Amino acid sequence: MSGSATGPVLVDADGLRRFARGVLETAGLDGESAALSSDVLVRTTMRGVESHGIWFLDRYVRQLREGGANRAARVRPVADHGGLLVLDGDAGLGLAVASRATRTAIERAGAHGLAVVSVRNANHFGAAGHYALMCAEAGYLGLVTSNTPPIMAVTGSRSRVIGNNPLAFGVPRTAAPPVVLDIAMSRVAGGKVRMAIERGDQVPLGWILDPDGNPTTDPEDFFVRRGALLPMEDHKGYGLALMVEALSAGLSGAAMTSAVGNWLHTPDTPSDTGFFLMVIDVRTGGPFDAFQDRMRSLCEEIAGAPRAPSVDRIVMPGDLEHEREVVALAHGVPLRGEIWSTLGELAETLGLEDELASIRR
Amino acid sequence: MSGSATGPVLVDADGLRRFARGVLETAGLDGESAALSSDVLVRTTMRGVESHGIWFLDRYVRQLREGGANRAARVRPVADHGGLLVLDGDAGLGLAVASRATRTAIERAGAHGLAVVSVRNANHFGAAGHYALMCAEAGYLGLVTSNTPPIMAVTGSRSRVIGNNPLAFGVPRTAAPPVVLDIAMSRVAGGKVRMAIERGDQVPLGWILDPDGNPTTDPEDFFVRRGALLPMEDHKGYGLALMVEALSAGLSGAAMTSAVGNWLHTPDTPSDTGFFLMVIDVRTGGPFDAFQDRMRSLCEEIAGAPRAPSVDRIVMPGDLEHEREVVALAHGVPLRGEIWSTLGELAETLGLEDELASIRR
Repeated sequence: MSGSATGPVLVDADGLRRFARGVLETAGLDGESAALSSDVLVRTTMRGVESHGIWFLDRYVRQLREGGANRAARVRPVADHGGLLVLDGDAGLGLAVASRATRTAIERAGAHGLAVVSVRNANHFGAAGHYALMCAEAGYLGLVTSNTPPIMAVTGSRSRVIGNNPLAFGVPRTAAPPVVLDIAMSRVAGGKVRMAIERGDQVPLGWILDPDGNPTTDPEDFFVRRGALLPMEDHKGYGLALMVEALSAGLSGAAMTSAVGNWLHTPDTPSDTGFFLMVIDVRTGGPFDAFQDRMRSLCEEIAGAPRAPSVDRIVMPGDLEHEREVVALAHGVPLRGEIWSTLGELAETLGLEDELASIRR
Repeated sequence: MSGSATGPVLVDADGLRRFARGVLETAGLDGESAALSSDVLVRTTMRGVESHGIWFLDRYVRQLREGGANRAARVRPVADHGGLLVLDGDAGLGLAVASRATRTAIERAGAHGLAVVSVRNANHFGAAGHYALMCAEAGYLGLVTSNTPPIMAVTGSRSRVIGNNPLAFGVPRTAAPPVVLDIAMSRVAGGKVRMAIERGDQVPLGWILDPDGNPTTDPEDFFVRRGALLPMEDHKGYGLALMVEALSAGLSGAAMTSAVGNWLHTPDTPSDTGFFLMVIDVRTGGPFDAFQDRMRSLCEEIAGAPRAPSVDRIVMPGDLEHEREVVALAHGVPLRGEIWSTLGELAETLGLEDELASIRR
């Protein structure tokens, strides 16, 4: 077993997908949900968003085993007005619920030009950008949001009041990969604070508050003593997080702020997370026929603009992720030793050691 | 004439509305467009957003006179799919075009539960928040964006590449004024840099770039030497500005980035600005029946959260603006001496001195 490897390990993308799917099926998920979910995790990993990729496979398995994610979930409509649909995720695995909701939103937008799908009773969906990418790859504009448990202060609050509530936006453009934006509303992700702890560094003032609501540079004030992340640009990040909460949970009736379950801390309890999807048909021949050409022009103008000193290149959101995915497909998916070890432990528990060993390149 | 007053002047809100309407009619605008437009300017002023309010009345008059804004504009549908509508603003005054587009979007959302209205060939619409407020006051969720001429750098660019592209979001809530967020994607508005010049101050590093793309603290590097505003939180503000450009102009086919006319510099040329509106019916009895109650709970939880040291109050976006409007309605609208002088000059040019004098309280 290679679980003890410490350097980066290269694995085959299709193999990793098969492995993840097998793991999720062993944990009780149906084949289609497992395939959809493994696709989210593997593509997110290939695109370099390590924190939301295959690394968390064991957490999703735990959530399925302990009951926070309903293995037999059936996503069902609560209200159906054609281009406007409210879905109940039946406490299913967030990756599968969000993938299905996105597929449905795309179908509805294809029929009506426009669709909004509002989802309640779901769980953590991984990287918001994946679902925006799905829309863009199908020829649609996609706006995707989710709420999360509180981890961020708002302007004036002492402690964690609201999630850092991700928002993703994806659009296709002619003769180039989709533009995909995926951001959270805090100045930095919690992962950046954790990295500072691992390196023994302080963090800049303005990233976090200590548990008494004071500015601090000590990353343990956030991670150990449970202070709060700060919103980006103060009232702007606060306002955008509130907007995402209203779109994701206000509309759908999902849990809000402190009522949202923390899937990492309480894997036995459905989190009642909410999603919001707006999808617009921007395919050639549709109501926004030349959209993709206009996006190409826009991106060419921006990427070709004069650069600041010592800057080599101006990139569009999603460019670097796309390039990483192309490399990973051709040369293998690089997994940090820590992630490879986690997969090794999981494989051992489930008796899938040979399957894991076989995907190494 | 009171044009020489230098202290703040209090005027009657309805009087100011009548005056602004009269001015716009004198400049050739039809009565309904003038009424809609004066409502935008006066409410925006009452809500304390001085930079986007009545202060600019003379600029709108100039745009109408010199041909940048078409006095006889008729907003017309380019494509009509029920809940999805593309409008041509016919180069009309942005305030009137956006007001009409918002009214239409609300009507369509009332009929279909959901509406997206995409507008091309429009002009500067003032405060984006006004149109989100219109939606919220009618019982709808509103998301409103517009693109602007380039004034902001993107991550890695030397100079102005994209607008700071405003986004506004408004929702009603039970037993309280609407939540209204209105933000631009730069760290700070250009007006804050101008205020630093007026006070003889430097600005913090991170607000602006000089014309060579270097960080600077000299506000004249932006205003005089035409450097660039910086996006909020770097790639996040850049990505959101790109999203707003795609929504506002990519969809509608309006001008983008460097092709957008600058209404202040070239008042004789239509700017071909684009708007995007998404409106969702959240009225009681509609598809999202209890939305307003959920928003009340959410806001109560946030406003009631423990406060950071020396913070008196946590406010929702739009709370302060609402309170200012209530005070202005009761006690008069405060206008800085500079703004009062501008109105005085305008009144003199148009022979409306008596009308202006009569609204002073």
